[in-house]
Amino acid sequence: MAKKNDIFKGKSAVELAEKMGLSKKDLEVCGKYSAKLNSEAVQRLRRGGKAKLIVVAPTMPVYGTDNQHYIICERFVQAFSLLRKSTLLCVPSYSLEDMLVHETYNNLFPLQDVLTGSGEISNIAYLHNFIANYINNQLIYNSNSSSLPYHLMWNRVATSRDEALKKVITGFGNTKPGRTLKEEGFMHMQNSELLAVVAASMTEEELKSRLSKIMVGISRENTAVHLKDIKLDDTVFEMLKGAMNPKLMQNRNGDPVMVYTSPTGNFLPEGNPLAISAAMSLADFVIAKFDSGVPLSIEKFFNITCAENEITPDMVVITAFVNELNTYGGATLENSRQKNLAALEKGIQVLIGDVENVKKFGVPVLVSICENRDITMDEIKIIDKYCSDLGVKPVFSHTKNYSTKAGIDFVKSVLEIIRIEKSYFKPIYENEIPLKDKINMIVKEVYNKNKVTYSGKAEKEFGLFERMGYGKLHVSVSRSPYWHEPSLQNEINIKSASLYAGAGLVMATAEDGEFMPYYNGKYNIDRVKNVLYK
Amino acid sequence: MAKKNDIFKGKSAVELAEKMGLSKKDLEVCGKYSAKLNSEAVQRLRRGGKAKLIVVAPTMPVYGTDNQHYIICERFVQAFSLLRKSTLLCVPSYSLEDMLVHETYNNLFPLQDVLTGSGEISNIAYLHNFIANYINNQLIYNSNSSSLPYHLMWNRVATSRDEALKKVITGFGNTKPGRTLKEEGFMHMQNSELLAVVAASMTEEELKSRLSKIMVGISRENTAVHLKDIKLDDTVFEMLKGAMNPKLMQNRNGDPVMVYTSPTGNFLPEGNPLAISAAMSLADFVIAKFDSGVPLSIEKFFNITCAENEITPDMVVITAFVNELNTYGGATLENSRQKNLAALEKGIQVLIGDVENVKKFGVPVLVSICENRDITMDEIKIIDKYCSDLGVKPVFSHTKNYSTKAGIDFVKSVLEIIRIEKSYFKPIYENEIPLKDKINMIVKEVYNKNKVTYSGKAEKEFGLFERMGYGKLHVSVSRSPYWHEPSLQNEINIKSASLYAGAGLVMATAEDGEFMPYYNGKYNIDRVKNVLYK
Repeated sequence: MAKKNDIFKGKSAVELAEKMGLSKKDLEVCGKYSAKLNSEAVQRLRRGGKAKLIVVAPTMPVYGTDNQHYIICERFVQAFSLLRKSTLLCVPSYSLEDMLVHETYNNLFPLQDVLTGSGEISNIAYLHNFIANYINNQLIYNSNSSSLPYHLMWNRVATSRDEALKKVITGFGNTKPGRTLKEEGFMHMQNSELLAVVAASMTEEELKSRLSKIMVGISRENTAVHLKDIKLDDTVFEMLKGAMNPKLMQNRNGDPVMVYTSPTGNFLPEGNPLAISAAMSLADFVIAKFDSGVPLSIEKFFNITCAENEITPDMVVITAFVNELNTYGGATLENSRQKNLAALEKGIQVLIGDVENVKKFGVPVLVSICENRDITMDEIKIIDKYCSDLGVKPVFSHTKNYSTKAGIDFVKSVLEIIRIEKSYFKPIYENEIPLKDKINMIVKEVYNKNKVTYSGKAEKEFGLFERMGYGKLHVSVSRSPYWHEPSLQNEINIKSASLYAGAGLVMATAEDGEFMPYYNGKYNIDRVKNVLYK
Repeated sequence: MAKKNDIFKGKSAVELAEKMGLSKKDLEVCGKYSAKLNSEAVQRLRRGGKAKLIVVAPTMPVYGTDNQHYIICERFVQAFSLLRKSTLLCVPSYSLEDMLVHETYNNLFPLQDVLTGSGEISNIAYLHNFIANYINNQLIYNSNSSSLPYHLMWNRVATSRDEALKKVITGFGNTKPGRTLKEEGFMHMQNSELLAVVAASMTEEELKSRLSKIMVGISRENTAVHLKDIKLDDTVFEMLKGAMNPKLMQNRNGDPVMVYTSPTGNFLPEGNPLAISAAMSLADFVIAKFDSGVPLSIEKFFNITCAENEITPDMVVITAFVNELNTYGGATLENSRQKNLAALEKGIQVLIGDVENVKKFGVPVLVSICENRDITMDEIKIIDKYCSDLGVKPVFSHTKNYSTKAGIDFVKSVLEIIRIEKSYFKPIYENEIPLKDKINMIVKEVYNKNKVTYSGKAEKEFGLFERMGYGKLHVSVSRSPYWHEPSLQNEINIKSASLYAGAGLVMATAEDGEFMPYYNGKYNIDRVKNVLYK
């Protein structure tokens, strides 16, 4: 990584593209330093991918550690580059607020473009809320139509984690007949089905088809009302299709990075199969960085995205920090950086669970253990012991003084695994089984819990979706990204179910899952400032 | 205009730029067909403008006629082009919903890019709501700070005309201490001060300075709290600065068009001095198209934007349709297309008032009267009579069968006025006088009313802003764009005042002005569909 005071001069998008064997004709240049791959290029590339796909995900970040996982992933990429391996990093775009929440220092350049490249996301939010307003308009001016939703299933979204909007009463300023006070809820943008269908679609036809299936409500006659029924699917398609294609950007070493549009994995599937497949034609190793932990992100990416698109992940790198393991084991966040062997021995069980889970999918695993200090011999001993029981060899590194040697050690371990271990990837459930059985399997196999309970509301909703013919969709368990709290022991309670027919799934929201998550800390703007101005 | 069934192949942004003597180096290309002018180019160009500036504005659209004004303006531009006059059209970007509300068929290509080019606007909306959420976060986690607003003056925005959000009670889902139920109101994005400061700024320094002056509330100690005090000004600047520069796009004849970011004139000043000044270096005639009527858009553009930036408009073209004049005169919208001499004779007074108002600014006027049928001799006679009393010669045209001759007649009249009449532009008020005096002058001189009344709330607010030292700012009268309703007779009531210190003005909201305007009709999506797919 370039030093903080270096003045980095970015490469042009064309230079970046040429480095990967692409030409100007494959690009829709956006500004000085970045470009969208155009549809022709992406559609050509997505078919030929031969790269090894390495998925990098954290165990489970605790407050303030997302940042560490980003940095360590960047260093892995750099070590590949030092060894002259052709590598391409794929990451989701994110917003200014995401940066504050995750305290992520992202090495992308120019950072402003990544954040306003959440222009894609702002535009999708615009369209999402336009649909909500359009439905309200039709309910007033077209109220005889039988194709109008009586029970609305399309909430407005907010682009901020704005808890005050979680539940509101609207309509105090209404002036039109037919409008009343209503209890409504805003969802965070990350829960938008529009965002999910953009991220999931491999072709324009698929996007079109997914949009037409989106259900916005139920009519008075008790029939499903789709985006197609209110005649919005084509228009929304025309407005969204540009957001499908990934953006070619760069890190502060001038290495190309693929930035794509995607939800975060705690609600809806994280990752973008079109971007990742295309990337697999452009390098020998594709590193796909996921933000949420293994159970949230990897489960959805594997069971839904990879399964649907026949993408085979070659290996998973789980990054874990000693302070996180200590926290899982009961250490307070403040003291978690200190050596605490008892906490470590307890907390490592979470990591071990993650390793086992990835293995259930048939995918080889590497564990990378990091800390901002030297990891002591007795800590290494504990970690080694549990890992070796599973036949996994952890790689250790000091993240503050990350050395070239540490990077090379890591890449060597990766290459060794890829050489020796073959991926026998398969999803852990079949879509044929009922919705609740799929959830039970996920909770048992991936969350390592023995029991799932359902609220009365959730029971009813699952029943309804099964009767409506949606029983063979995927399921997505929506939880807090920081779910591993002591109060959540051996069971998970599902409080509600939501249909995302266009995204091809039914979302099951756990007790701690929030359609409007909030940030439980103070936004520290200074940290972002320092990064932006460089 | 190209026929609807023609397949138009767009020109590349570089071709467009070369047509106007610009090179690739001046551009930040965005996709295949358009480009932002980069900062160096815009800053160089804004100083050298020698073009004649022709401002085109409607009298006052009635429901469903905004569209007509757009089309007629496009035809003017085409006629200039037929006569080989170097001309550049400047228009604001707009959203999908704007298209539905105004039923505007816009001739820009590719239309999708204009609408998602409201990506600028979506991003500004994102930042606006981020600020609201950031303030709430600081109020909880940093509540001892004396630089925090106690009385909040920063409402959230919605990008849709979503009346249900005009007044809401928030916080039913709150889980954190210190959060309570609150009555809050969303504003439409068009009222965002961020949007106003982006549109108003000629340089990055100016944008920075305007952002630092934005006031977000009043502290417990009764002092003003600015965006700068909560340390957000620099970060917001970094995120916004790219939105300042105009976009070079094209119409369906392949002629270049400059698209800029700006509010609509009924709330905050419409127009973008940076884009318009730069355009004035690129052609002999710059046509700036305004959406709102003369009193709303022209008043603000002249008194605020032109006055501050020493821009001299060379002439104003007022476009009016016979059906609008009939409507002002009492004809119902349904019957307004029919000949109705009594209504016309009454309604033409609105147009005559507009002509007089433009003349008060010292700017020559041309009136263009259109209708979707032949205008009859007796109608022409009435219109001619009132116009000739003011020394104005109207140009008539049949918009459905608009002929080359009609276009050439129009351009000849324009050239004749520019040749003979000099613009002695000056604003109609001096900033030195108190806020309410400025409002009184605007209402008297531009709205032709003899009385302004103020609600108790407004009185208090004006008093406060004067005492705080904001008395010498501009004022902006915020009204419904369809304000000329019979109930609004000889007086205007100002119901509230709002400080836009960064935008350099105090907004006075009239009885019919709405921070969250709504659309009083059915959105007809089919109309947009037909345009998008071409």
